[in-house]
Amino acid sequence: MASASIKMAHGSGGRLSNELINELFFRAFDNPILKQANDGALLTMDSKRLAFSTDSFVVNPYFFPGGSIGDLAINGTVNDIAMCGAVPRFLSAAFILEEGLPIKHLKKIVNSMADAARAAQVQIVTGDTKVVERGAADGIFINTSGIGIIQHQQQIAPQNAQAGDVVITNGYIGDHGIAILSQREGLSFETTIESDTAALHTLVASILAASANIHVLRDPTRGGIAGTLNEIAQASQVEIRLEEYAIPMRDSVRAACDLLGLDPLIVANEGKLITIVPLADSGKVLKAMQQHPLGRESAIIGRVLNQHIGKVTLETSIGSLRVVDMPLGEQLPRIC
Amino acid sequence: MASASIKMAHGSGGRLSNELINELFFRAFDNPILKQANDGALLTMDSKRLAFSTDSFVVNPYFFPGGSIGDLAINGTVNDIAMCGAVPRFLSAAFILEEGLPIKHLKKIVNSMADAARAAQVQIVTGDTKVVERGAADGIFINTSGIGIIQHQQQIAPQNAQAGDVVITNGYIGDHGIAILSQREGLSFETTIESDTAALHTLVASILAASANIHVLRDPTRGGIAGTLNEIAQASQVEIRLEEYAIPMRDSVRAACDLLGLDPLIVANEGKLITIVPLADSGKVLKAMQQHPLGRESAIIGRVLNQHIGKVTLETSIGSLRVVDMPLGEQLPRIC
Repeated sequence: MASASIKMAHGSGGRLSNELINELFFRAFDNPILKQANDGALLTMDSKRLAFSTDSFVVNPYFFPGGSIGDLAINGTVNDIAMCGAVPRFLSAAFILEEGLPIKHLKKIVNSMADAARAAQVQIVTGDTKVVERGAADGIFINTSGIGIIQHQQQIAPQNAQAGDVVITNGYIGDHGIAILSQREGLSFETTIESDTAALHTLVASILAASANIHVLRDPTRGGIAGTLNEIAQASQVEIRLEEYAIPMRDSVRAACDLLGLDPLIVANEGKLITIVPLADSGKVLKAMQQHPLGRESAIIGRVLNQHIGKVTLETSIGSLRVVDMPLGEQLPRIC
Repeated sequence: MASASIKMAHGSGGRLSNELINELFFRAFDNPILKQANDGALLTMDSKRLAFSTDSFVVNPYFFPGGSIGDLAINGTVNDIAMCGAVPRFLSAAFILEEGLPIKHLKKIVNSMADAARAAQVQIVTGDTKVVERGAADGIFINTSGIGIIQHQQQIAPQNAQAGDVVITNGYIGDHGIAILSQREGLSFETTIESDTAALHTLVASILAASANIHVLRDPTRGGIAGTLNEIAQASQVEIRLEEYAIPMRDSVRAACDLLGLDPLIVANEGKLITIVPLADSGKVLKAMQQHPLGRESAIIGRVLNQHIGKVTLETSIGSLRVVDMPLGEQLPRIC
């Protein structure tokens, strides 16, 4: 690796993150399940197929418009399991607490986890708590890991996008990242932008019921849809071409991105997914998504081509075509 | 809870830890699996019985005599699963890295994880990496979660100790805690005291093969054997009476504890387990343990009585009986 020490961008979900994952973790921990590079691992135990996923949450601040590190930690792992096409069942919760954290903050966070778990119908079945000295952490970090059951026979993987497929998302992009940044920077806009944190497993169930040919399911969190789609374009060796006008975005998020000089395509989402499906099934899938409470603004935002292999491109509103790079990602640290 | 803010002792494995777990986490996350209060959760999925466990590691320093945070993170979760009587299979690894962490340190830690995973025959199948700014963490924190398969029909739980049972451990206590403290405080002794970090699942397999009546299996990490045995005495509503002369301890550890003013019974272990078995089976179990490379110094260290219910007591070498309290635990922060 090029760097001698860890930089913020190693945690960005962008190019340096991928370098760390591919050149260090994958090499050291080498095994075929890990290399599937899904949001979670797909395990077969006897004849049973399980999904297993882990995520640590370090979001700053830990309370923000629309949520807290607590519901984020539940929904994030529920979603990683759901993106494997699995039904989330059991979660672990491990806390690293900084000495001095107000107990009332911890209570509020823990209660938001309990509420989110109930809403997502998952049980928190095991846990751990560590405390470090003042200054050795930043308030609270939470790891959740989870187990889900795969009940279908579909082959869903970032490697499976095919030319001719269409790319669908379930609504407005960029809400989570802008909500966090606004809170952190003390920015206020005409309307408060709230995090879109939500558990997407029932939406995934609707998608799987609508089509037996779902090729890809991912949640575009860190690195935004630019990061996620670049990973898919690489893994599937295809071009993913987005249509700028078709991407659902709140005016307030667009305005905030303009003000902050951010490309909304790299801004993190927490209640959004990307699914890639054959053109023939796209109507059914889109309709099923639009009928779900978390999918009302679902839209087809692009298609899969075999021209600029490994690239994400954007047809802009004025008709030009630009490459959407994998973000380097220093712009949005500790977004989740 | 009595405190308004988090104190170091909330992470000690002692009384304040238990208060946090019982009064906050168990209440909020209420479900029967969590309340089993095992080292991991016992899950039934269809007819399959699984163990699921999580642990975050914040040990300071992250390199120490006999190991690093890396092998500790693998062995710790392998052991939590093994203490459920399960065969560990799949692990997740989630990293929180501080900006500026030398990549060569990270590589060494990751390689020690890979080595420990190979030695324990578990696969690291999924992971996550977050990076926080300089000063927002302390080098590296690692969470591992794991899944194991339960292949026997025994009922092993901290609630199952019975009057008449005997208490067995697999060797010298206190090595890990003293190794860390020596390194941290820059103390040197005549012989270097090394951490006893080790994966105990094959030792557990030997124990389960030797007796179909294993009542309790626990690894006495944070809080030491005092903490673990107090939890068992409470959960089983029995007295656990230790015999001081019978507890295996290195002279160097005893000397270090004297110097540091520490009770060795509260010092953390990483490659030790406690098993509680009926007297009738204790000979077979002890022999099986002594034949295992990680059990050569195994010894019967006490017995289960129904006199001082909920207490751990110690028959001292001079014949007196003292109560061994649940440690409050501020003495040994960030030991794992």
